[in-house]
Amino acid sequence: MPYQLRKNFKLFTLNSNPELAQEIADLLGCEMGKSSITRFSDGEVQINIEESVRGAEVYLVQSTSQPGNEHVMELLIMIDALKRASAEAINVVIPYYGYARQDRKASSREPITAKLVANMLETAGATHVITMDLHAPQLQGFFDMPVDQLLGGTVLSKHFADKGLEDAIVVAPDNGGLGRARKLANYLDVPIGFIDKRRMQPDEPEMINIVGDIKGKNVIIIVDIIDTATTISLAANVLAENGAKAIYACCTHAVLSGQAVQRIEESALTELVVTNTIHIPEEKRMPKIKILSVAPLLAEAIEHVHNEKPVSPLFENIPVSDQ
Amino acid sequence: MPYQLRKNFKLFTLNSNPELAQEIADLLGCEMGKSSITRFSDGEVQINIEESVRGAEVYLVQSTSQPGNEHVMELLIMIDALKRASAEAINVVIPYYGYARQDRKASSREPITAKLVANMLETAGATHVITMDLHAPQLQGFFDMPVDQLLGGTVLSKHFADKGLEDAIVVAPDNGGLGRARKLANYLDVPIGFIDKRRMQPDEPEMINIVGDIKGKNVIIIVDIIDTATTISLAANVLAENGAKAIYACCTHAVLSGQAVQRIEESALTELVVTNTIHIPEEKRMPKIKILSVAPLLAEAIEHVHNEKPVSPLFENIPVSDQ
Amino acid sequence: MPYQLRKNFKLFTLNSNPELAQEIADLLGCEMGKSSITRFSDGEVQINIEESVRGAEVYLVQSTSQPGNEHVMELLIMIDALKRASAEAINVVIPYYGYARQDRKASSREPITAKLVANMLETAGATHVITMDLHAPQLQGFFDMPVDQLLGGTVLSKHFADKGLEDAIVVAPDNGGLGRARKLANYLDVPIGFIDKRRMQPDEPEMINIVGDIKGKNVIIIVDIIDTATTISLAANVLAENGAKAIYACCTHAVLSGQAVQRIEESALTELVVTNTIHIPEEKRMPKIKILSVAPLLAEAIEHVHNEKPVSPLFENIPVSDQ
Amino acid sequence: MPYQLRKNFKLFTLNSNPELAQEIADLLGCEMGKSSITRFSDGEVQINIEESVRGAEVYLVQSTSQPGNEHVMELLIMIDALKRASAEAINVVIPYYGYARQDRKASSREPITAKLVANMLETAGATHVITMDLHAPQLQGFFDMPVDQLLGGTVLSKHFADKGLEDAIVVAPDNGGLGRARKLANYLDVPIGFIDKRRMQPDEPEMINIVGDIKGKNVIIIVDIIDTATTISLAANVLAENGAKAIYACCTHAVLSGQAVQRIEESALTELVVTNTIHIPEEKRMPKIKILSVAPLLAEAIEHVHNEKPVSPLFENIPVSDQ
Amino acid sequence: MPYQLRKNFKLFTLNSNPELAQEIADLLGCEMGKSSITRFSDGEVQINIEESVRGAEVYLVQSTSQPGNEHVMELLIMIDALKRASAEAINVVIPYYGYARQDRKASSREPITAKLVANMLETAGATHVITMDLHAPQLQGFFDMPVDQLLGGTVLSKHFADKGLEDAIVVAPDNGGLGRARKLANYLDVPIGFIDKRRMQPDEPEMINIVGDIKGKNVIIIVDIIDTATTISLAANVLAENGAKAIYACCTHAVLSGQAVQRIEESALTELVVTNTIHIPEEKRMPKIKILSVAPLLAEAIEHVHNEKPVSPLFENIPVSDQ
Amino acid sequence: MPYQLRKNFKLFTLNSNPELAQEIADLLGCEMGKSSITRFSDGEVQINIEESVRGAEVYLVQSTSQPGNEHVMELLIMIDALKRASAEAINVVIPYYGYARQDRKASSREPITAKLVANMLETAGATHVITMDLHAPQLQGFFDMPVDQLLGGTVLSKHFADKGLEDAIVVAPDNGGLGRARKLANYLDVPIGFIDKRRMQPDEPEMINIVGDIKGKNVIIIVDIIDTATTISLAANVLAENGAKAIYACCTHAVLSGQAVQRIEESALTELVVTNTIHIPEEKRMPKIKILSVAPLLAEAIEHVHNEKPVSPLFENIPVSDQ
Repeated sequence: MPYQLRKNFKLFTLNSNPELAQEIADLLGCEMGKSSITRFSDGEVQINIEESVRGAEVYLVQSTSQPGNEHVMELLIMIDALKRASAEAINVVIPYYGYARQDRKASSREPITAKLVANMLETAGATHVITMDLHAPQLQGFFDMPVDQLLGGTVLSKHFADKGLEDAIVVAPDNGGLGRARKLANYLDVPIGFIDKRRMQPDEPEMINIVGDIKGKNVIIIVDIIDTATTISLAANVLAENGAKAIYACCTHAVLSGQAVQRIEESALTELVVTNTIHIPEEKRMPKIKILSVAPLLAEAIEHVHNEKPVSPLFENIPVSDQ
Repeated sequence: MPYQLRKNFKLFTLNSNPELAQEIADLLGCEMGKSSITRFSDGEVQINIEESVRGAEVYLVQSTSQPGNEHVMELLIMIDALKRASAEAINVVIPYYGYARQDRKASSREPITAKLVANMLETAGATHVITMDLHAPQLQGFFDMPVDQLLGGTVLSKHFADKGLEDAIVVAPDNGGLGRARKLANYLDVPIGFIDKRRMQPDEPEMINIVGDIKGKNVIIIVDIIDTATTISLAANVLAENGAKAIYACCTHAVLSGQAVQRIEESALTELVVTNTIHIPEEKRMPKIKILSVAPLLAEAIEHVHNEKPVSPLFENIPVSDQ
Repeated sequence: MPYQLRKNFKLFTLNSNPELAQEIADLLGCEMGKSSITRFSDGEVQINIEESVRGAEVYLVQSTSQPGNEHVMELLIMIDALKRASAEAINVVIPYYGYARQDRKASSREPITAKLVANMLETAGATHVITMDLHAPQLQGFFDMPVDQLLGGTVLSKHFADKGLEDAIVVAPDNGGLGRARKLANYLDVPIGFIDKRRMQPDEPEMINIVGDIKGKNVIIIVDIIDTATTISLAANVLAENGAKAIYACCTHAVLSGQAVQRIEESALTELVVTNTIHIPEEKRMPKIKILSVAPLLAEAIEHVHNEKPVSPLFENIPVSDQ
Repeated sequence: MPYQLRKNFKLFTLNSNPELAQEIADLLGCEMGKSSITRFSDGEVQINIEESVRGAEVYLVQSTSQPGNEHVMELLIMIDALKRASAEAINVVIPYYGYARQDRKASSREPITAKLVANMLETAGATHVITMDLHAPQLQGFFDMPVDQLLGGTVLSKHFADKGLEDAIVVAPDNGGLGRARKLANYLDVPIGFIDKRRMQPDEPEMINIVGDIKGKNVIIIVDIIDTATTISLAANVLAENGAKAIYACCTHAVLSGQAVQRIEESALTELVVTNTIHIPEEKRMPKIKILSVAPLLAEAIEHVHNEKPVSPLFENIPVSDQ
Repeated sequence: MPYQLRKNFKLFTLNSNPELAQEIADLLGCEMGKSSITRFSDGEVQINIEESVRGAEVYLVQSTSQPGNEHVMELLIMIDALKRASAEAINVVIPYYGYARQDRKASSREPITAKLVANMLETAGATHVITMDLHAPQLQGFFDMPVDQLLGGTVLSKHFADKGLEDAIVVAPDNGGLGRARKLANYLDVPIGFIDKRRMQPDEPEMINIVGDIKGKNVIIIVDIIDTATTISLAANVLAENGAKAIYACCTHAVLSGQAVQRIEESALTELVVTNTIHIPEEKRMPKIKILSVAPLLAEAIEHVHNEKPVSPLFENIPVSDQ
Repeated sequence: MPYQLRKNFKLFTLNSNPELAQEIADLLGCEMGKSSITRFSDGEVQINIEESVRGAEVYLVQSTSQPGNEHVMELLIMIDALKRASAEAINVVIPYYGYARQDRKASSREPITAKLVANMLETAGATHVITMDLHAPQLQGFFDMPVDQLLGGTVLSKHFADKGLEDAIVVAPDNGGLGRARKLANYLDVPIGFIDKRRMQPDEPEMINIVGDIKGKNVIIIVDIIDTATTISLAANVLAENGAKAIYACCTHAVLSGQAVQRIEESALTELVVTNTIHIPEEKRMPKIKILSVAPLLAEAIEHVHNEKPVSPLFENIPVSDQ
């Protein structure tokens, strides 16, 4: 076993992504903590923790992905149960932190739900957060407890480096993602471009313009989250119309809500590379989608936290981050 | 208009029971606060409050009924939005407080979700709670802010008094509810009984015994919550088999989960009287169910709170409460 | 020595029940922590902790029994002193949690003192509570720190099983205690009854009715607290008048305030079995009262907490609890 | 009536000093809030607030004088009740703040009870403190809510100025009280002295030395608290032996515990002037003691707070304070 | 006077920007609150508030600009003083929120000082924040109290619209500011460009490329903060070398630290338009710098908050914001 | 090495007194933690912690001496960084606790900055305070975490005992410091005196009077803090004029602000003995000033805390303390 875990180490999973949690357990060489998280007849969460956690250093894996409200409540209720059962430390491992895009008042009287959830986690009793690619890096400051943020770019950029695409160019699908694109481009040592969209008058159509030379190139689009896939599909199509040879897209968090899968399928995208921070159900696993696992990264981070080693080496030389 | 409301009074509703909220607004003679609570494509709650609440004394109506996790999250997010929008006071009106039955560690390592939700409401920014028939009266102590608890018995007992059933007897469906039954019996000036259930050995069948004379009587069963309707249906059937003339059941909170409606329909129950603390969808409104509105009670309580009059007269002489 | 305690383990007692604390120390094989808790000339609490507690895992034994306010203040002040002296963990062992019956607003503008005391303990610096038979199980939720609740029923039911009474029946002195009675009856494999009291009209006398066959039987009455002993004495007398052979009563917490001892002495009770969660002064130890010690139970619980073993086995198969 | 009070003004008293509270009510021209604070049979505090306080600005009078633990608990429980009954503001008027001398760790592992009580008041729900002569002025900083401190010197110094003693000198009974003595001396325009005590070797008797010329003078000793009266009696006797003509002592807080009254009676003191911040029972009201009322001062402070006028003018030009 | 202020309205200033505060007072038609904020001999902050603030709704103006630590401490200490003096509400008006760029852990073991300062403000007692152009909009979520954020773009864009430059183009000085640039461009109805900088290898020089046609154009560069002016000067020079006709730059917050003024003076910039959120000392007011006042905007926001009107209309149709 | 430190022990220093911190590190035989605390161009604090602190028990040395606001902010920001980097315990070692004299409202509407700073330290994440000679002992109560206070008198009194001055007398420079003077006098077994200052009428000059026989004596003046040195210089001159042979002064905290050094130089003082709780820059180190190091005392205290031994033996038999 490569990892040394102390006796009081416990790993538990909730319902959002048990496969990822099991993969982490396998890599760490530990048993998954025994518990069941079901529903009462009226839909309320019912939690049974079937082994003692007194004095334990618990790691609890749960993405707050769709259905987000269910998964947030499961997480809070489990933390409450662990706290009352005298767990010594409650490390919540949230590969995908939902509600991250509700991080400011974009218009009057909006909630800042990402902060609300952070407050809830602290009030419930979490003592430490391990997460991946927060939508904005400022979300670390929504917590007053330690937050260790890992980056999907570690996995994604290595994938493309291994692939060894010729004549590649990295393209940001809009001007907001230029930083992330630039870092991947630097890592792969290829040029960069972006898609410029603007609407001069409210009633005019949006004008789309590709900045950078993509003709005959293998284009790689990079974003942090793909939700409805509208932006990415549009980008792929525009790139194809303008002569791109092949179009690869990648992201850390594959939300894929609504018509996302269909849009991707029908788009000019050649391949979509995602990670498994969010569980992707069988029906969404169409041929175009390639899933990379973040379990090795999370397992290593958990082991570092557990054994009080710095986590930073895990993202030293990380090529892809906008943060 | 019977009620005088100050300019900064605002009433808002969320999605669990907008009809009840509208009824309250109509009784108070006020406009419903303009807002929409919808979902983003990935199911996350999206809130738009479409009028200023700066300096307002807000009353926010939401039962945390099924789907409970969705309704709890809607409530917390709306409170966050109101707080950040400078509402002066945030009074949450929770006709049915879900998760109330998770109020203690019944076995090892259970959560106390009713307390967790109370903590969440306080952390989010609620300043006052108005609710009805908390499953255990001790739940008032889960809050450090003021809680005004109203009682559905006010409405239910008046209903049966008006009905004027002859030869009536109130029956508790198990020994836990004797207090509530006794109070209704006293109010109606009728006798009382209860259904005694016990299992002598784990592998023996449960023995059921009716204490009290119910033969040829109009039986009224009273409980606070009807969820799966197993207990109430069984009670009704046993009472029928033992010669009851007609069997009425009543409760404040009609959760009616799983096969509840079917069980009631197929049971010996003559009528089930419930209140509208929980919205009852059309498909559950079968002929046997009679719904009484708690809107007048809630409207009056809100007006008393708003105008700083004591709320206690609303439940002086309240005949039915186990508390 | 059966118990292994680490070097930083410390046990302290305050003034409410030093004999019980000493018994626990003897069972654990540890020295009692050196301290004196006296009064200044004006009655203010003066605390001297006469050994270092820096880094210690302290267990502090104090029932908040009569005089309750003195004992609550002693407890809070000692916690403050331990916290400021750098104790690592402050586990308060409260065999009898006073003010537990002030757990809700039974009428308007009442305090919820049981919650207030819980808040005080948390603010002062307690980190964990070990207690016995909280009057309502919901009181666990008054705390946000871990609470381990032990049950006097463990001791009481074993006592009656060992006694091997023939023709026994367990009787609840009113309808509220039916659950607790049923569990003891199940454990002893004997029948159950209860005393039904009601007043039909405010000006009529209360009617008392015994449900269950007690004639010629050895009756065992079980409650959690005996305070003024009014209920229990009345029950005993009614049972005697109705032909009971002998009447045993038992409880966890023997408050025995006011005329309680005299009432018991003059009643038809054959024997009263209590535990020593509350210190019973010499003058109250009349022949009818038999005192069982909870020290073995508490010592074992403390050892389990200290050595991070689950506490739950201590009440698995516990026959008597209403919770 | 000189004072204008708004409709939501309420004054309540607890049990430590109801006479002072009534005097304040009379001066303010308001009714005393209806409540009873009694004890259950087992000594636990029972509170009944017999009028609505919803939205009220409550002023609650309670000295935490002997029996201090009882009076502190009464105060905390009443605050809890008021908070849960929706009082808008809870101003605690604590003429004598007990435990004030437990304000630091004078030796290892001591509690700082004065801070503990301050924390308890904040946690319970108090929103503002009005008090008199805190033993050390730093105690204001133990609170994070506003504290208005009044000074008994206002009343005491006026008394001695009115008395017009000839050949007067103010004497501090030890070196710690020189500041307070100097201020009274300046106000009365008379000289100052103090009593110097020292023990050169642990086994030698303490040497006492009077600094200042007191022969044939009317001596006025001033302190903030007289508790056991040991210091003051000793000082009086020494002064008498050294030729003082008459010896007056004065203080704000007359704790008078243990043998204090007897000591004063038997000492060379001519007169002891105290205020009524602490209720002095009939049996302690011997002829030598003169009691001045602080009710006018407190009533005025309450009115200023209520009407949002500065309180500072009440102690501008206050001659006697060590702070 | 256009503004109606209630009697309990008070405006105070600290030392960072008293001119702006006075301008606001003049616009509101109110007196500046009397206070002096000086230093003791050892440099500690000494505050004298020279008028009563009891019950007042205080607005306290302070930018936490250079020297930032001094200005933060002044602000916290003043809030403490106001809280202890019974101010009813403490609205802190922070035109420039310093430390805003320390809003995340950009590398291991960094502080998040922007969150720390937010926590300090809440702990000290602030109840509401009014600020301008937070460096990242997520900083709103660092607070749990209401935050009203105004935008300097309101003033800046109106200035350029009024100026009526022909042949204008808005340019972002790097790819991070494209959003802000686009909005100003849309408002002025002119094209947009940006300066693309990249370094292909760590030891190669950075390559700079202008995207967009700026030859012969009047270029407007927009950023939120100008600190050392390195970026802006470099951008201006590059634009000049590439044929821009005139180069205007604008920002909300003119930090102008280190050699900033000299760099600007020596650069190809034609004019730099800034606001007075940060006081610009005389020696930095060289001819190229034009200062617009945000006092009208802040005065209006304060009046809206005070009179409980929505603040949102102040930034409806705001053309320039990246948020 | 006399001290055993565990692997997770880390000592860091900030900028106020790195020499003292280094001396402590040398005595403890540990490396100084690697970090740099610099300033950004605009003066904001920039912190780099250059080694992992995950799971570490950190001791952080910083006096909040002049410039106090800078040093307080450095301390708070470093605590924030350590907390977010998962340090297990953050012990702040504050040899000189600045703002200690702002510990009460001496006049209306003053802040209590010493409490504010204590609150800030707790909010930022400090878990334990080690400090020296708090200006008033009550400041311990401003914290809710453990505070270990060491006393400079340990070092100062040993110095004078070793010096073996003949014909010595200890003199307090005013009546407030008599307690501290008496303790040193007792330790050295010499007489005591004090300087009495008073102003009978506001327009009269202050009258100064020496109590005690100082003619031809070696006088030792003792205070806790010397700030502007006005009091101490005046005292020295008066003592010289009245025939003192030589005049020594000593203090723990040498603030020495404003003209302090010049005043001391020009005064009749023979020698001033201070400790290095505050760094004394080269230009203030004139011949008259002798600096004693508190590093051995602090090192020993840190070792005791780290190894969970009582700290109290370090000040048992401490001769000089007013507390």
